[in-house]
Amino acid sequence: MPRTMHLMAYLKTGATAVHPGGWRHPQTDLHDVFSPARYEHIARVLEAACFDGCFYADTLGIPDLYTDSIRPYVEYGGQLSHLDPMMVLPVMARVTRHLGLGATLSTTFHQAYHLARMLASLDFLSGGRACWNIVTSSMDFEARNFGRQSMDAVQNRYDQADEMVEACCALWDCWGADALVLDKASGRFADPDKVHRADYEGKYVRVRGPLTMPRSPQGRPVLMQAGSSPRGRAFAARWAEVIFASSHGIADASAFYQDIKGRMEAQGRNPAHCQICPALTVVVAETESIAREKAEYLDSLTPPELELATSSAMLGADLSKIGTVEELEAARGHQGHGGHVDRVRAKMAADKASFTEATRNRRRTIIGTATQVADHMEAMFQAGACDGFVVMGNVTPGMFEDFARMVVPELQRRGLFRTAYAAETLRGNLLA
Amino acid sequence: MPRTMHLMAYLKTGATAVHPGGWRHPQTDLHDVFSPARYEHIARVLEAACFDGCFYADTLGIPDLYTDSIRPYVEYGGQLSHLDPMMVLPVMARVTRHLGLGATLSTTFHQAYHLARMLASLDFLSGGRACWNIVTSSMDFEARNFGRQSMDAVQNRYDQADEMVEACCALWDCWGADALVLDKASGRFADPDKVHRADYEGKYVRVRGPLTMPRSPQGRPVLMQAGSSPRGRAFAARWAEVIFASSHGIADASAFYQDIKGRMEAQGRNPAHCQICPALTVVVAETESIAREKAEYLDSLTPPELELATSSAMLGADLSKIGTVEELEAARGHQGHGGHVDRVRAKMAADKASFTEATRNRRRTIIGTATQVADHMEAMFQAGACDGFVVMGNVTPGMFEDFARMVVPELQRRGLFRTAYAAETLRGNLLA
Repeated sequence: MPRTMHLMAYLKTGATAVHPGGWRHPQTDLHDVFSPARYEHIARVLEAACFDGCFYADTLGIPDLYTDSIRPYVEYGGQLSHLDPMMVLPVMARVTRHLGLGATLSTTFHQAYHLARMLASLDFLSGGRACWNIVTSSMDFEARNFGRQSMDAVQNRYDQADEMVEACCALWDCWGADALVLDKASGRFADPDKVHRADYEGKYVRVRGPLTMPRSPQGRPVLMQAGSSPRGRAFAARWAEVIFASSHGIADASAFYQDIKGRMEAQGRNPAHCQICPALTVVVAETESIAREKAEYLDSLTPPELELATSSAMLGADLSKIGTVEELEAARGHQGHGGHVDRVRAKMAADKASFTEATRNRRRTIIGTATQVADHMEAMFQAGACDGFVVMGNVTPGMFEDFARMVVPELQRRGLFRTAYAAETLRGNLLA
Repeated sequence: MPRTMHLMAYLKTGATAVHPGGWRHPQTDLHDVFSPARYEHIARVLEAACFDGCFYADTLGIPDLYTDSIRPYVEYGGQLSHLDPMMVLPVMARVTRHLGLGATLSTTFHQAYHLARMLASLDFLSGGRACWNIVTSSMDFEARNFGRQSMDAVQNRYDQADEMVEACCALWDCWGADALVLDKASGRFADPDKVHRADYEGKYVRVRGPLTMPRSPQGRPVLMQAGSSPRGRAFAARWAEVIFASSHGIADASAFYQDIKGRMEAQGRNPAHCQICPALTVVVAETESIAREKAEYLDSLTPPELELATSSAMLGADLSKIGTVEELEAARGHQGHGGHVDRVRAKMAADKASFTEATRNRRRTIIGTATQVADHMEAMFQAGACDGFVVMGNVTPGMFEDFARMVVPELQRRGLFRTAYAAETLRGNLLA
């Protein structure tokens, strides 16, 4: 059987997920941004299109890096997960049967016991479809919502992240798969010899366990991650079953792919057990010229101030105050994503772009007909640069509907994507 | 219009809520304990019976006080909230339109930002029906799931609880009621002059805010509490809109009722703005003799070891090692509920019971026909001893179904309980 690709959808519980002006687009619904019906609809669209799953990005606060103010995000509608994604996912679970359901949860700002329990509960409620997008959090405005002034250094954050995942796995393993007895006649509820404590004692994390619930359908949720630094890659190679990678060209993506798969082998993991999925942002339409006009229209919807505020939040420094990469590095402290800074450098080098041009928050977008989008995806996939894609919702729900109606059938026609789910669990579909 | 009573249901996300042997009863379903369908069914039953709301009790771990072991709870099925209640409530919200939905969340082991965000999200997803049963947590086995060895003293825990509620209220107030604009044409998402930070700085809790989401339908969730100590009463008088009170006789309940309402007035609160609801455990049947046999049968289902383990967990000390109230007070440290210890004392004094008899975990249960149960409730209510009741699910879902079919119609016939909801929000129904 030929190898087929995996598709995950990137969502936010808000009016827009990845395009700061997306909420103003006609294909964005606004009447139901804070209502469960919106997220049920998106779940149904993605499941009808046979997506492996979806996950919610999240940030624990409103970015205030640009001009030290939340005003641009509030006034112009910057991208935020408004509602708590963990509260929305159970609702999506009830209207689907196969779609994987992921949440971004911070290893810095969550307690292991709560986190492990929430995810195991979601795994039960969804019948084995829970996914954890593991992040360390990276912004000082988030730290300030948890009683701290600033973020710790990346190395320490990842050390804590390793402990958090170890502790959660220890909690998920407390109940043996056959511990539950449930025999009313004898009064035996579970076999106490098959339930043990976690007794996890790390430098950052201590938790005794056990959880109050039996082993969940998947045993543990699917683990997802997005690190691009050497430390982040080491973490991903150890834990990740899905990697949300940056969107580069084929050469860069292939190098990243080989690096991760090599690191997995070096750790004794089967490289097939992690699906590497670069971000994919798409504007698809009936003809290339319509798609181009649609993409230009979409980009026209972002006020310059919000664009700067968004770029400042991604890079971790106030772009109203800095003009060079060196100033950016000095200003950001432990904030922001190293991968984004690398991209600014690369753009300046490759395109002879100025710092201002290179920091403009314009995602690389694939624009064209379904055939053109599928061509791009097929080329990446067949070149060994990825195992699938994370499809970014630049207009919600409109562009997921367009992608599902136009691009997915073309991928299926080419034999590159499933036409029916192979398994009931997310892990089962990722490995099928 | 005559005054009518309020009913809240006490639930756990497990096989049994308040009777340790309840899971073995024929009217308990076991096939769906870990499935959302079970909780949807319970929500529908309660809403059809016009209950104000329901709430999940919760403990953050498996009790191990008796013989320093989790074995009795695991082997014999002690009462636990297996699944995370916060993950179950959104699902119940989707199959109901009026029923209040409450979760027990700890002021000691949760972060204000997460807690405020989860509850505001539930308030959005339910259209204004979220409720927070505020607890400080009281058990060392819970502390050990959060990196600590033991609980802090009650006074400190309540001081922290006050800060947590202040901080959460500050977060819920960050967005003005009319801050959202959502105008695609002008690109104005919200009015930044109507969104401010919380900037809460306490001794225990520091959080900056704002939340990422607008003001929720109820503004803040309904606040519920169950303190019985003087410090607990002071806390309840300050914050509570519903009080889950212990179940005593009319005289004790009236004294508690007067005390709380007086404390509210002293703080400048309208005494009508808090509904005091004692626990009510019922076995109801066609005839009194059937009800008596049913109650005896139910009690026969608890193995003695689980009964001792349950009493140990409630009292906060290992009953295998102690034989007097003095030893109990010395052994429990800062654990357990003072109210339960008071009850042991009262029982020994009033009934000339031995310590062993007085510590047996037998709830006072109202046993009889619908008429007899309604008589009891009416007498309490008309005597000014309560504003309603917290109905305890001793057999789930069976006894809620029985209560809904038999007792509720009798209360309605007497004009003591609503026959239709007055409002869309929980607060609206509590104040109607």
